[in-house]
Amino acid sequence: MSLIQEKVDQAIQILKEQNIDLWLTFVRETSGVRDPILDFLIGDNDLTWPSALILTKKGDKIAIAGNLEKEALERMNVFSEIIGYDTAVSIVLRETINRLNPDWIAINTSKNNVHADGLTHSMYQFLIEYLSGTPYVDRLISAEPVINAMRGRKTNAELACIQRAVKITEEIYQKTFDFIKVGMTEIEVADYMHALMKEYGVGFAWPRENNPAVNSGPNKVVGHNGPSEIKIERGHVIHFDFGVKFEGYCSDIQRVAYVLREGETEAPIEVQRGFITIRTAIEKSREAMKTGVTGNSVDTIAREIVTDSGYPEYKYALGHQLGRVAHDGGALLGPLWEKYGDSPNQLLEVGQVYTLEPGLAVPNYGYIGLEEDVVLTEEGALYIGEPQREIVLLGR
Amino acid sequence: MSLIQEKVDQAIQILKEQNIDLWLTFVRETSGVRDPILDFLIGDNDLTWPSALILTKKGDKIAIAGNLEKEALERMNVFSEIIGYDTAVSIVLRETINRLNPDWIAINTSKNNVHADGLTHSMYQFLIEYLSGTPYVDRLISAEPVINAMRGRKTNAELACIQRAVKITEEIYQKTFDFIKVGMTEIEVADYMHALMKEYGVGFAWPRENNPAVNSGPNKVVGHNGPSEIKIERGHVIHFDFGVKFEGYCSDIQRVAYVLREGETEAPIEVQRGFITIRTAIEKSREAMKTGVTGNSVDTIAREIVTDSGYPEYKYALGHQLGRVAHDGGALLGPLWEKYGDSPNQLLEVGQVYTLEPGLAVPNYGYIGLEEDVVLTEEGALYIGEPQREIVLLGR
Repeated sequence: MSLIQEKVDQAIQILKEQNIDLWLTFVRETSGVRDPILDFLIGDNDLTWPSALILTKKGDKIAIAGNLEKEALERMNVFSEIIGYDTAVSIVLRETINRLNPDWIAINTSKNNVHADGLTHSMYQFLIEYLSGTPYVDRLISAEPVINAMRGRKTNAELACIQRAVKITEEIYQKTFDFIKVGMTEIEVADYMHALMKEYGVGFAWPRENNPAVNSGPNKVVGHNGPSEIKIERGHVIHFDFGVKFEGYCSDIQRVAYVLREGETEAPIEVQRGFITIRTAIEKSREAMKTGVTGNSVDTIAREIVTDSGYPEYKYALGHQLGRVAHDGGALLGPLWEKYGDSPNQLLEVGQVYTLEPGLAVPNYGYIGLEEDVVLTEEGALYIGEPQREIVLLGR
Repeated sequence: MSLIQEKVDQAIQILKEQNIDLWLTFVRETSGVRDPILDFLIGDNDLTWPSALILTKKGDKIAIAGNLEKEALERMNVFSEIIGYDTAVSIVLRETINRLNPDWIAINTSKNNVHADGLTHSMYQFLIEYLSGTPYVDRLISAEPVINAMRGRKTNAELACIQRAVKITEEIYQKTFDFIKVGMTEIEVADYMHALMKEYGVGFAWPRENNPAVNSGPNKVVGHNGPSEIKIERGHVIHFDFGVKFEGYCSDIQRVAYVLREGETEAPIEVQRGFITIRTAIEKSREAMKTGVTGNSVDTIAREIVTDSGYPEYKYALGHQLGRVAHDGGALLGPLWEKYGDSPNQLLEVGQVYTLEPGLAVPNYGYIGLEEDVVLTEEGALYIGEPQREIVLLGR
């Protein structure tokens, strides 16, 4: 069974569970604007003309598409009914919806999760226009809960890909720590990591400009920006943020190293204190993760450990879900800030994969941010891979 | 000057010309849903939190983004003002719009051009919410004319990339014709072309599943579907559809070959007649292309040549624009069918690059479709590369 077949069957189970009759993905020219759910419905294929992919809780799997794309859809062995057309999708779509007569139609529009928000405003307007005069125009609801569940609950095949991505990330980190010498620039380090990625045959979990982020010392502006010409010096904290994509699934891991000064055998106490604070914030928030708690409650634990220790509050969420993209949507381990919408209020569920990534700056040394990837199981949140338990010491 | 700087300056000229005060691109988490205009505004970068990119006819270039992404935007040297925020975009956005006080705000929503339709329905709703209580909520218009002009009018740098993509496509075709032997499968031919793409270091103009399309003989279903296990036999017409991406810009070219049967020195008369019909349809429609005519009028010329010659009407448009994607939007050389919206009514303009790709089936032999790429200049539409003037004969 292909990953797509597996995820489509899972989606039908979710529709049953949530008692949603019909889920409609309505798209066109997906080489231009690509609804992110298409990865799970048609994989790497594109749909050129206005097309509708319909799943129902009864188990219907229907595709409406241009006749020239019927054959490609048939080859996928996912849809049980493929309806082609030449000039106008509106009639075929209306007929099909009429025949299925759903009480509710879930569509891909969502304020909280960008991955459930693939329907453009114009495509929404087309839909309203095509359904006008039918009762269905008043039966549209958001597919956000369906997509959150579907993207969140990783199948074994999906989890295996993430585990492999994490493993490769760890190996690349280890080789990089062995490679780094005092005086190298951040860019030289990133180039080396890129070369290793090529050897491993993996892609980028986010664009290469900022992947890896390599931040050496106290003068680097930390954020979603890439390596610079800044040179690695003794007394620098070096912070890394790096993620690879293996067979479509991502890792996202931050690491911290310290470059020993002459005579030092360990990191200065301020650096150690920062590291332990972050390490504790990760460990305590991980322990609190279980089915049914909100992402916000988990975020609060880590956030308070950092601020109670006297560090400024980091201006981002503790953790996001991880999947086909580094920032996979749905429930978020985050604060209740406008930019995060309702996603921090959503509940954790078994099968979800999260990052945990608090951070703080240590004046005069640099930025300390760790990021671990965890999967939520019946037994709690388990680390994928080995978490960083001690600061990496370089420059011996 | 970078390509992005060049296109942003072009956009400001277009805003002046169209007398549009302000163009707003409003996005979030672009690793999930990516407004296609971002290629021209931030390149390969992503924006994580809700962000607004604003250009005005007065020449303002403003970016509003999360503080963690300010540095990456600054490095691009495109925006003259970068406003960061930590928790809520709404206030900063409202303040900025108030300050600029535009008569009209163009937003990325379009029924006709998917490439001007990057605003999701939820992001549209956020915008309405954030602007409610201000006069600006009633001043929203579609940025379609701005984006059509900007994507359509290729700069010299853009055109050079397309020319190179076409040149490489031609070279790969030539090597492939030399390589093909009777008995090979369509898939073997496609694999060879993929290997050549790797040698040339080019990407795919559309997904590799259907790129190249290789259709050998009368039994292959032609459309947006890829090569199969069908074997190349004597007496087959072989049809190819293939496009590469060079530095972000695409080619899209169809070619036709015929595999000679024992004793034949040229293609059978029916095949030749089909080829000449398509060749003539391309040549006559190309000659009719000039500034100010509609795409539909050009489509009609080619379409009638094919149907007047007694062949069935092809069920797709004569040609589309070509750019960063194979199917770049805006004016289309197409029939007035629902699926094409208003795009065939739009006017041709100098600097646009189009495909010309009529097709027909020759019973018992296979499918004949040619596709040439042309650029519209003051002197009319010029071929990019060498058009196919004679059927390629294989199997000698």
